[in-house]
Amino acid sequence: SSPVVGHLQNKDGVTFTPFGRLQIDAGVVNGPDSIDDPGLGFAKEIRRARVGFKGDIPGGFGYQMELEFASGDLEVMDAYLRYSAGDTTYKIGQHNNFQSLEELTSSRFTSFMERAAFTDAFDFERKVGISVSREKGDLLMEGGFFSDNLDNLQLDENNSWSVDARTAYAPKVGNAQLHIGGSVHYREFNDASDTTRYRQRPELHITDTRFMDTGKFLADSELGYGLESAAILGRFHFEGEAYWQHVDRPGALANPTFFGGSAEMGLFLTKGDKRGYKGFKFDRVKPAHPLGEGGFGAVQANLRYDYLDLNEGTIQGGIQNAYAASLIWTPTEYTRLMLEYSHMEYDDMPILAGTKSDYGVDSIGMRAQVDF
Amino acid sequence: SSPVVGHLQNKDGVTFTPFGRLQIDAGVVNGPDSIDDPGLGFAKEIRRARVGFKGDIPGGFGYQMELEFASGDLEVMDAYLRYSAGDTTYKIGQHNNFQSLEELTSSRFTSFMERAAFTDAFDFERKVGISVSREKGDLLMEGGFFSDNLDNLQLDENNSWSVDARTAYAPKVGNAQLHIGGSVHYREFNDASDTTRYRQRPELHITDTRFMDTGKFLADSELGYGLESAAILGRFHFEGEAYWQHVDRPGALANPTFFGGSAEMGLFLTKGDKRGYKGFKFDRVKPAHPLGEGGFGAVQANLRYDYLDLNEGTIQGGIQNAYAASLIWTPTEYTRLMLEYSHMEYDDMPILAGTKSDYGVDSIGMRAQVDF
Amino acid sequence: SSPVVGHLQNKDGVTFTPFGRLQIDAGVVNGPDSIDDPGLGFAKEIRRARVGFKGDIPGGFGYQMELEFASGDLEVMDAYLRYSAGDTTYKIGQHNNFQSLEELTSSRFTSFMERAAFTDAFDFERKVGISVSREKGDLLMEGGFFSDNLDNLQLDENNSWSVDARTAYAPKVGNAQLHIGGSVHYREFNDASDTTRYRQRPELHITDTRFMDTGKFLADSELGYGLESAAILGRFHFEGEAYWQHVDRPGALANPTFFGGSAEMGLFLTKGDKRGYKGFKFDRVKPAHPLGEGGFGAVQANLRYDYLDLNEGTIQGGIQNAYAASLIWTPTEYTRLMLEYSHMEYDDMPILAGTKSDYGVDSIGMRAQVDF
Repeated sequence: SSPVVGHLQNKDGVTFTPFGRLQIDAGVVNGPDSIDDPGLGFAKEIRRARVGFKGDIPGGFGYQMELEFASGDLEVMDAYLRYSAGDTTYKIGQHNNFQSLEELTSSRFTSFMERAAFTDAFDFERKVGISVSREKGDLLMEGGFFSDNLDNLQLDENNSWSVDARTAYAPKVGNAQLHIGGSVHYREFNDASDTTRYRQRPELHITDTRFMDTGKFLADSELGYGLESAAILGRFHFEGEAYWQHVDRPGALANPTFFGGSAEMGLFLTKGDKRGYKGFKFDRVKPAHPLGEGGFGAVQANLRYDYLDLNEGTIQGGIQNAYAASLIWTPTEYTRLMLEYSHMEYDDMPILAGTKSDYGVDSIGMRAQVDF
Repeated sequence: SSPVVGHLQNKDGVTFTPFGRLQIDAGVVNGPDSIDDPGLGFAKEIRRARVGFKGDIPGGFGYQMELEFASGDLEVMDAYLRYSAGDTTYKIGQHNNFQSLEELTSSRFTSFMERAAFTDAFDFERKVGISVSREKGDLLMEGGFFSDNLDNLQLDENNSWSVDARTAYAPKVGNAQLHIGGSVHYREFNDASDTTRYRQRPELHITDTRFMDTGKFLADSELGYGLESAAILGRFHFEGEAYWQHVDRPGALANPTFFGGSAEMGLFLTKGDKRGYKGFKFDRVKPAHPLGEGGFGAVQANLRYDYLDLNEGTIQGGIQNAYAASLIWTPTEYTRLMLEYSHMEYDDMPILAGTKSDYGVDSIGMRAQVDF
Repeated sequence: SSPVVGHLQNKDGVTFTPFGRLQIDAGVVNGPDSIDDPGLGFAKEIRRARVGFKGDIPGGFGYQMELEFASGDLEVMDAYLRYSAGDTTYKIGQHNNFQSLEELTSSRFTSFMERAAFTDAFDFERKVGISVSREKGDLLMEGGFFSDNLDNLQLDENNSWSVDARTAYAPKVGNAQLHIGGSVHYREFNDASDTTRYRQRPELHITDTRFMDTGKFLADSELGYGLESAAILGRFHFEGEAYWQHVDRPGALANPTFFGGSAEMGLFLTKGDKRGYKGFKFDRVKPAHPLGEGGFGAVQANLRYDYLDLNEGTIQGGIQNAYAASLIWTPTEYTRLMLEYSHMEYDDMPILAGTKSDYGVDSIGMRAQVDF
């Protein structure tokens, strides 16, 4: 039989390692009957279908490309080159800037089908830029200068830019893995149009209806602050985040500050299992007793409170208090099934239910996932 | 020299196997002179340019992704994850539903450049869904619940769904491989628009002109039945299929039943060669005497009668009686050259040739193909 | 530890070798103040993000696919199959036709961030076609019949075609590698519209502003002639090209001949380094003393004169005299950093600076590159 080989390597030592993921979602989103929207109710989608390629290049260099085609069209996720020297890594190209533990944790490893509401609402996404990251023991410091994402950069009139920085401290205290961190983000929109928009789906991605939506509004710049905290103690974990997004608007227009935050905790029902943690982010769960090796895999129950306030002054994007519970079955390291229920309390919403701007929405979702 | 390795495998046993195909077509489609269409005459195209990735995940799981870019844009073919237990395989994601032996046989291994007319005419294509397939000895039973293909699912208002089932029995009788089967398909369009359309090209894909075309018409649901038969006896093979597509239309509108069917037979002119058959589908031809190993490869001649009736009541999509002959040279297992001629007798057509709705169309096509 | 494996190979001997590149650009383009264009000034982009797959198929066959996603959308570069017998190689599918040493040299190995102006201006690009190439010692002869590129072929009304041929002679004389060659290209546009357009960016790709631009004009066919010369002598290299593009226009319209040409020379400042040359094209630089192995890599300085004349009769596309200098640092074989400055003298331009059609434009660009 042929030997086990994890990656290709050319004669000069350049390596090539493929990787990917597949997430298939289905679920139901139920709003008030008075909201007539065929995008609600039962829906299903391929949430993510990705393949990527990464490798090392002798001399301390490396590359990573990741492509997404779940929408039927191509979307470029990562496309960067890397240089590492000691504890320091430099990246140039499209990669994540440094906002939020939840955002930076791979979607393969989050506790709910979608990340906390503030992450997408405040437009966290990969951008083309240059950055430096330094990991020294339990301490991380990283920062970079970014422009926009690749799609938006096709307009060469796009002159937006941002600076981003993040720090995290992640000591092991006894058996506990702790994590505290903070990030700051400043962006000038600097465009012909100079507008922005914050909005969010109801905890599932299968619908395109965003109950929460500020609409487009004039803006010069945004300044964001984030706080991160997390702990893993055996089968238990906790994660809490808060994020303030302050917007500077032209002339005499008032400058709003929007806010989002979330707190989640989870418990593995199966003995010996715990959340993975690596590189100042949550990582893969490796079941102590996988399916197919005499075990059943790992089962985890999670609760989350997810708050988002997009209301301020004349801008009415809505306020969300969402309560969610999820059950995750991880039969083996590279497979995962999720079931979750969310109840959203919405207040002062831009979409009215009849004449009411306050109402509740419920969603139930399921996901099947593999990665490689 | 380095060892031969067919796939990558990470330390946890997850494998990665790439695969792909390239098909380059050229040809001529000649209609009556009175039809003035610059899309006819000589044309050429890259028919398929695909790369895919599949693999196994410990615990009985697996994945498959296949991407097509022959149109210059990305199209997602397969994107599913798989779980196998004993004789049973479950799939979730985008994959083929279970219509027609001809449709399910890979385009790398069909006897003509394009499949029998009814397959595309009746919209057979991969869809996002969940299915189960059970192979036990000579017997296959499979069924699933499907929504729509990935492109159409981008509209979250798309609520179409279908159930599909297929069975096949494939005994070996002496030296002969036999195949009989049947399938049933029921689909609710269930959309804002609730229309459908059946149409087909003139046996080649190089032109975008569809002489046969019902146009869009109002429809609630479709119910299809298919019958499959095939036999391989040494150098000879036969394949025959029939398919009825019944459409339910709203209110007092008449409910038409369209019909298509084809019968083909082929003979290898080279000794020792025969069509491959595997997994209740036709499979790869492995020349007994490949080019480059002292032989010339395999040469096969095929004949096909291909009938399609898209006329019923007020819907005039045309009737096709097509007669085709093909010559396939398979120099080696992974290479193929095809030459084919078709004559189509068209009756009651929606596109008129002058004042006549009955006329003939001829086409000559060539294909060069490799796969890996 | 697992063995080093450069490619996958299935049990029948079909191989699979991935390859790719990443180029990240930033820079400044400064025109006269009287030209108010937000696409000028500072800009940045991912210039190329590519991954490809190539392999051999037993019997002398092979395939190559290369995909580009730097624009955020997919673009198909190569998509061809190949057959080799002795010194002769046949290709069918999308591949480069045979215009210009500069065009055929990989963008990973050119001396400036963008190729000489005439190459893009005259629309050199990969096309779907069939070709034969014969290399015998120092002599190359190649020719082919082409249609259009894959994107344009989606319109089946596109009936354009071209014939292309190129020859090159590349003797080693003492320590010097010499190269002389010539190419001829004839294309019938043969389309519904029958127009063409020649235009070019100001030496960098980060802006979409083309100062030089003939606009669309009626044309039946184009006939191009190119001359190529190059020499590598130790650390020094020279490259000179000239290209005439003659256009036949319908009826009484005058038939213009446009012209472009460039001359560059370069010198490695580091001992023992020289430009690579292989297959009648420039090839990879392999630093004598790479970074990370006790050396600093290779450093090369280059100068270029780049002329383009798109003015003739009533067609005023502008005249460019561009002077450029570049500095290339090649830390290791697969990594590269470029810095370049260009000054363009523009005359009789279609874009006016105030009332003046003659003015200068300056650009400074940087590139970070890896390939694998």
